[in-house]
Amino acid sequence: MARMQVSYRIAAPAPTVEARAAALALEQSVECPLAAVREARVRREVVGEVVSIVPDGPDAHRVDIALALETVGDDAGQLLNMLFGNASLQPDVRLLDVRWPDGLPALPGPRFGVAGVRARLGRAHGPISCSALKPQGSSVGELARLAYLQAAAGIDLIKDDHGLADPPSAPFEARVPAIQAAVARANRDTGGRCVYAPNLSGGGRKLARQAALCREAGVGAVMLCPLVVGASNMAELVEDGLDVPVLAHPALAGVGRIAPALLFGGLFRLFGADMVIFPNQGGRFSYDAATCRAIAAACAAPLGPHAPVLPVPAGGMTAARVGEMADFYGPDVVVLVGGALLAADDPAQAMADFVRAVRCAGEMR
Amino acid sequence: MARMQVSYRIAAPAPTVEARAAALALEQSVECPLAAVREARVRREVVGEVVSIVPDGPDAHRVDIALALETVGDDAGQLLNMLFGNASLQPDVRLLDVRWPDGLPALPGPRFGVAGVRARLGRAHGPISCSALKPQGSSVGELARLAYLQAAAGIDLIKDDHGLADPPSAPFEARVPAIQAAVARANRDTGGRCVYAPNLSGGGRKLARQAALCREAGVGAVMLCPLVVGASNMAELVEDGLDVPVLAHPALAGVGRIAPALLFGGLFRLFGADMVIFPNQGGRFSYDAATCRAIAAACAAPLGPHAPVLPVPAGGMTAARVGEMADFYGPDVVVLVGGALLAADDPAQAMADFVRAVRCAGEMR
Repeated sequence: MARMQVSYRIAAPAPTVEARAAALALEQSVECPLAAVREARVRREVVGEVVSIVPDGPDAHRVDIALALETVGDDAGQLLNMLFGNASLQPDVRLLDVRWPDGLPALPGPRFGVAGVRARLGRAHGPISCSALKPQGSSVGELARLAYLQAAAGIDLIKDDHGLADPPSAPFEARVPAIQAAVARANRDTGGRCVYAPNLSGGGRKLARQAALCREAGVGAVMLCPLVVGASNMAELVEDGLDVPVLAHPALAGVGRIAPALLFGGLFRLFGADMVIFPNQGGRFSYDAATCRAIAAACAAPLGPHAPVLPVPAGGMTAARVGEMADFYGPDVVVLVGGALLAADDPAQAMADFVRAVRCAGEMR
Repeated sequence: MARMQVSYRIAAPAPTVEARAAALALEQSVECPLAAVREARVRREVVGEVVSIVPDGPDAHRVDIALALETVGDDAGQLLNMLFGNASLQPDVRLLDVRWPDGLPALPGPRFGVAGVRARLGRAHGPISCSALKPQGSSVGELARLAYLQAAAGIDLIKDDHGLADPPSAPFEARVPAIQAAVARANRDTGGRCVYAPNLSGGGRKLARQAALCREAGVGAVMLCPLVVGASNMAELVEDGLDVPVLAHPALAGVGRIAPALLFGGLFRLFGADMVIFPNQGGRFSYDAATCRAIAAACAAPLGPHAPVLPVPAGGMTAARVGEMADFYGPDVVVLVGGALLAADDPAQAMADFVRAVRCAGEMR
C-alpha cells in the first residue's frame, strides 16, 4: 500500500488533539465516518492513518498522517485536493510538509531545472538577473520598447507582469511576438542571450493556444501562476511538450496555510516549474528570513528523479539589495527587480547598474 | 473608464491606513511604484484608485478601491488574480466584496440557475435532497450499488465525493457510465428523476475528455472544484457547451481571506455554477450562521443578467437537521447529507428517512 506521509500542524491542545488528528485523517482520505467504510480493503489501504503526534508550541501539535497515493493518481490538482482540499476550510489546520517513502505521483517535474535554465540563458554560474514588463495598461509598443531596453542592458530573463493576461491594451497575440522580436533585436545588437517569459493565462483551451503562439514566436520561457491557471493545467502543458523553462508565480498562494517551502520548492516543482517566484524578506510581503531560507533549501533538496530548481525572491526588490541577496541565497538564484528599475529617473542606467551588480555578486563569491 | 469597485478589509490603524490602501491599489493594478507609470492613459484609467476608507473594528478599515475592468478581460482566473492574486500574500488584507457599476466581465454565469435545476430534477418547489458517493477507494461496483440505493430511495441529486477523481479503484471512464446506468435503472424502477453529478478533475485536456464521456453516458449534472481545476477551466467548459447544471465544491477555498459570500455566491456563480456547496454552520467546518446567511443571500442577489443559484450547505450534516436547515435557508436550498447516510446501521432506511424529511420540510412551509 503506497502512501505519502503528510505533516500538518493542528492548533489543538493535548486533551483533544488525538480526536482532531483522527478526524483530519478521515477528512483528507475517505471524507466520511469510519462506520461508513464497509470494505475491508478501503479500511486497510485507503483510510488515512495517524502516524505520530508531537507537541509543536503551546496548544498545537505536529501530526503526521499517511494518505494513500492511489487517491492522487497522476493529477496535480488532485494532489493539492488530497493534501489540503477540505482541510483548507478548517482554520486550525496548516499543511507543513509531505514525504514520499513509496515514490512520487507521476507528475512532470521540472524539464530544465537549474542546469537547463543556465544553459538556455548562457549563464553558467552566478546569480541570474530578471526584470518585469510593467505597468498593466501599457501598449504593446511601450512594453516592447521596455523589453528592448532591458535586454540591451544585459538582463538575463524578462517576464511579463503577472497581471498582464490578455488585456485590450496589450493582447497576448500581439504582445508576445512584438516583445520577442524586440528582445531578439537587442540580442543581435549586443550579442546577448536574453530570454523573454510571457505570462500564460486562461483555461486549458486558451493556454494551449498561447503555448502554440509562444512556440511560433520563438519565445524562450513562459510564466504561469499555478494557483490561478490551475496546477493540472500547468502539469498538462509541461507534459504535452512545452519545450521551454517555466517560471511559476505565487499569486493566490495565501500566507502560509500551506508551508511556502512545500508549496514553492516541492509542489510547484512537481507541477513542472524550473524557477519559483516568491516574496523575499523585507519587501512588500511578509515572509521572514527563515521562510525564505526554507524555500531555497526546498528548491535544491532531493525530490525523486527531479532536478533542483531556481528560487526567485521578489516583491519590491531593488538593485541595492543584490549583493545581500546573493550572499543570502548563494549563486543559484534569480534576482528579480521589477518596478524599481522602471521608476528610476534614468531607467536604462538603472538596468545597467542592476546587471553590473548581479554579475559582480557572481564574481565576488 | 469601466471599473469594478472592490472592498477590502485592511488590518491597519488610522495613522497608516491611507498609505496602506494606496499601496494595495497599486499592488492590485499596475503592481509597481507610481513613478514607473509614465503613460498618462495608464495613470488615468488603469491605476487602482482608493475610493473610500471607513473604520471597521479596532485597528482595521474597510477600503474601497476602483480597479479597471480592462485588466480582467473575459477570463475567470484573471478576475481572481486582479481581485486577490498578490494581496493573498499580504496577511493584513481580506477581500470582502465586489460591485459592478460599469457592468460585469464576460463570464458565462449559471446556465441553469434555480429554475433550470428544478426543471431538470422535476422538483418544482421545496428543498432538494442531495447525497454523496463515498468512500474513496470503493470499487465501481460498490459505488454503483450505493447510487442505485440512493436513487431508489428518492434522493434528487447524487454527487461523487470531491476526492473521487480518477483513481485506479474507480477510474472515471469506468465509474461514470456504471453509476449513471445504476441511477437510470433506479429511475425506471421507481419512476424517479434522480440525477448523478460526477466529479470532474484535471487540466483542460482531461476535463474536456471527461465532459465528453459524461455527455455520452447521458449524465445529468457535473461537479467541479473551481479552485482545484482552475476557475478558467470551469468557465471554459461552461462556455464550450457543457449542457448540464454545475455543482461547485469549495475545496481549497481557505477560511475567509476571500469573503465566502463573494466567493461562492458571487464569483463561483460568475464562473458558471448553478449550485454552490459550502460548509454549513455546526458541522465539521467553521462558518457561523451569519456567514451562511450571507452566502445564501448572495446566491439569490441580483448579478447582472445572471440567474440566482442554489446554496448547498454541507459538511457533516445529518437527516435530523433537515427541518432546521429548511427553516434557515428557505425552500431554495439543496440539503446535502453524505457520510451520515452511509454510516447508518440500515443505509437504505436512512436514505428513505432523509428523503421523507426533505419532502416534509417542503410541504410544511
